[in-house]
Amino acid sequence: MAYVHGYGAREAQRLQDQASTLAGLLHWDTVYPAGSAVLEAGCGTGAQTVTPATQSPGALFTSIDISDASLAQARKAVEAAGVTNVSLDQADIFKLPFPPQSFNHAFLCFVLEHLSRPQDALAVLRSMLKPGGSITVIVGDHGSAYFHPESACAREAIQCQVTLQARAGGDALIGRRLYPLLKEARFEDIRVSPRMVYADASKPELVDGFTRRTFTAMIEAVREPALGAGLIEAARFDEGITGLHRAAGDDGVFCYTFFKAVAVNPNGL
Amino acid sequence: MAYVHGYGAREAQRLQDQASTLAGLLHWDTVYPAGSAVLEAGCGTGAQTVTPATQSPGALFTSIDISDASLAQARKAVEAAGVTNVSLDQADIFKLPFPPQSFNHAFLCFVLEHLSRPQDALAVLRSMLKPGGSITVIVGDHGSAYFHPESACAREAIQCQVTLQARAGGDALIGRRLYPLLKEARFEDIRVSPRMVYADASKPELVDGFTRRTFTAMIEAVREPALGAGLIEAARFDEGITGLHRAAGDDGVFCYTFFKAVAVNPNGL
Repeated sequence: MAYVHGYGAREAQRLQDQASTLAGLLHWDTVYPAGSAVLEAGCGTGAQTVTPATQSPGALFTSIDISDASLAQARKAVEAAGVTNVSLDQADIFKLPFPPQSFNHAFLCFVLEHLSRPQDALAVLRSMLKPGGSITVIVGDHGSAYFHPESACAREAIQCQVTLQARAGGDALIGRRLYPLLKEARFEDIRVSPRMVYADASKPELVDGFTRRTFTAMIEAVREPALGAGLIEAARFDEGITGLHRAAGDDGVFCYTFFKAVAVNPNGL
Repeated sequence: MAYVHGYGAREAQRLQDQASTLAGLLHWDTVYPAGSAVLEAGCGTGAQTVTPATQSPGALFTSIDISDASLAQARKAVEAAGVTNVSLDQADIFKLPFPPQSFNHAFLCFVLEHLSRPQDALAVLRSMLKPGGSITVIVGDHGSAYFHPESACAREAIQCQVTLQARAGGDALIGRRLYPLLKEARFEDIRVSPRMVYADASKPELVDGFTRRTFTAMIEAVREPALGAGLIEAARFDEGITGLHRAAGDDGVFCYTFFKAVAVNPNGL
């Protein structure tokens, strides 16, 4: 399955910008007790690994990813941050090299939207958890993006990303589905909390860090594949990017919502 | 200008259900000091008057509306709640019978989306404020509604409400525009905070109070005008309502965002 965002250096920078801007919003309430064994599935370049690992210095993170190239970047990110409680391993989320019930907690951020069988991945992760262990899942939902001024081209450019992600087997609108997915994977005590980003000109750092350098950059990055797949004409796509930049202007507003869920592996017989 | 929701008894009940469900989310941070003179513009049936007035017992609310019928209902609502710091008067927001700078604060909830010149209304209200006085504005944004499972018919039914409101001179997508509108009306220190409603089956009271009895009921209420205007076929509209009810089901999710802004009338010469 293709990773829709690609693996380039520019994408790595975008992921880092995104992580810095969103660290508080997404991760402030994820803290694991000392001694916990935490499985992070799909750590990628480690952009979302450093904050949770730093916040839980007494927990041991086992962070896996399918891509060796990403793991190499993750290793650098973890070392640069001085984080010592993260162990990085190459592994496929569907063929995990751990015995059942090896972990107290599981954590995954910006992973589920790329998988063609997210409920199966959740079921696998549940099997890795001890009874009573928790899973924490963070995803986006591109259908939650709206902005001012209105731009039909910007909507079409965003839709290109949604379509490409669907063709790669994923779902860029998965945020709203977290609750039923976790229920289907037989988790209990499912608590979903939306994390909305609202950016107007009174928050210039958020406009720059999120509207421009996270969201708009993500859409810009699918220009070539979108044109190559014949999803949109070049002029319309570029006008869409201009529209997103207008939403980052002095009279612009941009809204987007991430979804975070915490759920529990039931204490079964 | 037509009030798109109508003035019937069923609508009054819907407004009351909405108010009970949303009181905390929308109003918890609106508290005025004792002695404040507060102008509430467009109080309607008083559904959104009781909570702020109760929370600021030492402030005197002057709540105006253009509809005598609504004011009669507001009078009942205020009396039923035992609220004694609200004075109700019939007046047009564009022809207010008060001298300039009569009030310390202005408050309006679910009003601006019905006006064809919202920035002018804001400018009029600013003229009613003393220098340094504040305005608090709460509106919805129907473009913020999304749900699971997906339903193209539900989207079309919602779009009927948006179209009818636009034809009546209003804007059902106004939430995202609060910041530029307040800026255009020359308010300062504009702070917009989104108030997102996220309802899944773990919150049955919210599903019932908001997804079913507030939002779906509001869309259902435009069935006759939407069919009369030829905006949609009856079967499609009804299928859309069914879709919204599915989003209120055991595996359903419904999201909607209100926007609340507080801004200040500058201390100018």
